[in-house]
Amino acid sequence: MASVASPFDAEKKGALERLARRGADAEVMPVLDRLNGLADFFTTSSCAGRIVVIYLPAVGAKREAVFAGKWHRAVEVEEVLGAIAEAPASTEGALWFIVQAPILHVACRDTDKAVALLRLALDAGFKYSGLKGLETATGRVVVEVMSTERMDVPLAAGSTTFYTDRYLAFLVSTANLLLARGKSKLGRFYEGVRMLE
Amino acid sequence: MASVASPFDAEKKGALERLARRGADAEVMPVLDRLNGLADFFTTSSCAGRIVVIYLPAVGAKREAVFAGKWHRAVEVEEVLGAIAEAPASTEGALWFIVQAPILHVACRDTDKAVALLRLALDAGFKYSGLKGLETATGRVVVEVMSTERMDVPLAAGSTTFYTDRYLAFLVSTANLLLARGKSKLGRFYEGVRMLE
Repeated sequence: MASVASPFDAEKKGALERLARRGADAEVMPVLDRLNGLADFFTTSSCAGRIVVIYLPAVGAKREAVFAGKWHRAVEVEEVLGAIAEAPASTEGALWFIVQAPILHVACRDTDKAVALLRLALDAGFKYSGLKGLETATGRVVVEVMSTERMDVPLAAGSTTFYTDRYLAFLVSTANLLLARGKSKLGRFYEGVRMLE
Repeated sequence: MASVASPFDAEKKGALERLARRGADAEVMPVLDRLNGLADFFTTSSCAGRIVVIYLPAVGAKREAVFAGKWHRAVEVEEVLGAIAEAPASTEGALWFIVQAPILHVACRDTDKAVALLRLALDAGFKYSGLKGLETATGRVVVEVMSTERMDVPLAAGSTTFYTDRYLAFLVSTANLLLARGKSKLGRFYEGVRMLE
C-alpha cells in the first residue's frame, strides 16, 4: 500500500509545483530553496522588495492600480521618468513612487517550528514579522517575514506634477538605499535559516 | 493563605499600572479599556495612528530622530509649515512627513485566545497583524494589531526644500484621509472585541 501523505506534505507538494511553474524573484530564490529543502517548512509567496511607479485612482485603491514601472533592483532617474511618461493620463487619482520591503510567507508544520523561524526573521532585521493563519485543526502556521523599508511618495495628482529633478534624484537614491538594505536583511535571514537544518 | 497570582495576571497588573501612570492616545482608550476588561488579555503598548514631521540624520536612523511635529488628529497645512520651520537646520539628513497607522500590542493568555483576537483584527482591516513573542514556557502570546495606512515622504534634504504649496496641500489631505481610515478600523475592531466578552 502506498503511504498517505499528511495534509502538510500534500500542501507542500502543491506549493512547490506552483513555485516551479510561476517562478519567483531571482534575489529571493536562494532563501526559498533553503526553506523548501527543510521537511517542516514551505514557502507560499514572496517578493524580494521592489521599487514601483503606480497609478492609483484613489488612496489605497489597489485593485484598480496600474503599474507604470516595477523593478526588483536599483533604478536610474531616467528609468523612473520613462515610467512616469507611460502612466495613464487622468484628472483623478494620483501617481505614486513606492518602495516595498521584501516579504515572504512560510508555512510551518507546527507552532514550535513557526516560533523558531519567527525568531530568525526578527534577528535578521525583519521587524514586522509575525505568525498568521494558525489552523487549529492541522496545527499548520504561516509566518509572515516582513521588514520596515518603505516609502510612499505621491508624484502627481490630476494634472499637477509635484516633483522636480532634484526631488526625483533624492527619491531614487533613497529608494535604492532602502532596497539594498532589504536585500542585506534577506542575506542575513538566508544565513540564519541554516540553523534550522 | 493568600492566593498566588499567575505570571500572566501579575504581568497584567503591572501593565495596567503603567497604563494608568503614562496614559495613552485618547482615540485608542475605549479599545484598550475593553481589552483590559477581559480576563485573558491586556494591552502593553498602543498608538492611535499619527502624522509626524521628523528630522532623520540618515535613512532609518530612528534613534537620532528629532520630532518637529506630531499629531494624532487631522492637521492643517499651516501647522505642518510651523513644524517645518522649527525643525533642526542641518546640511545632512532629511526632513520627512510621515503617516503611521494605528498599532496595538495585546498580550493573550494562550495561543487560542491570541488566534481569536488575530482573526478579529484581520476582519477589522488590520491586515499586517500577527502573533509575536510566543513564550513557550508560559504560553503567553502577544498579538500585534497593525494596519497598512502609511506614507513616508521626504520634504527637504540638506539645504534643499522639495515641496511646493500645492504638494503640501495634497500631502496633508491624503494624510488626513489615511488617519481617518485607520481610526475607522479602530472603531470596527472595538466592535469586534465585544465578541470576546
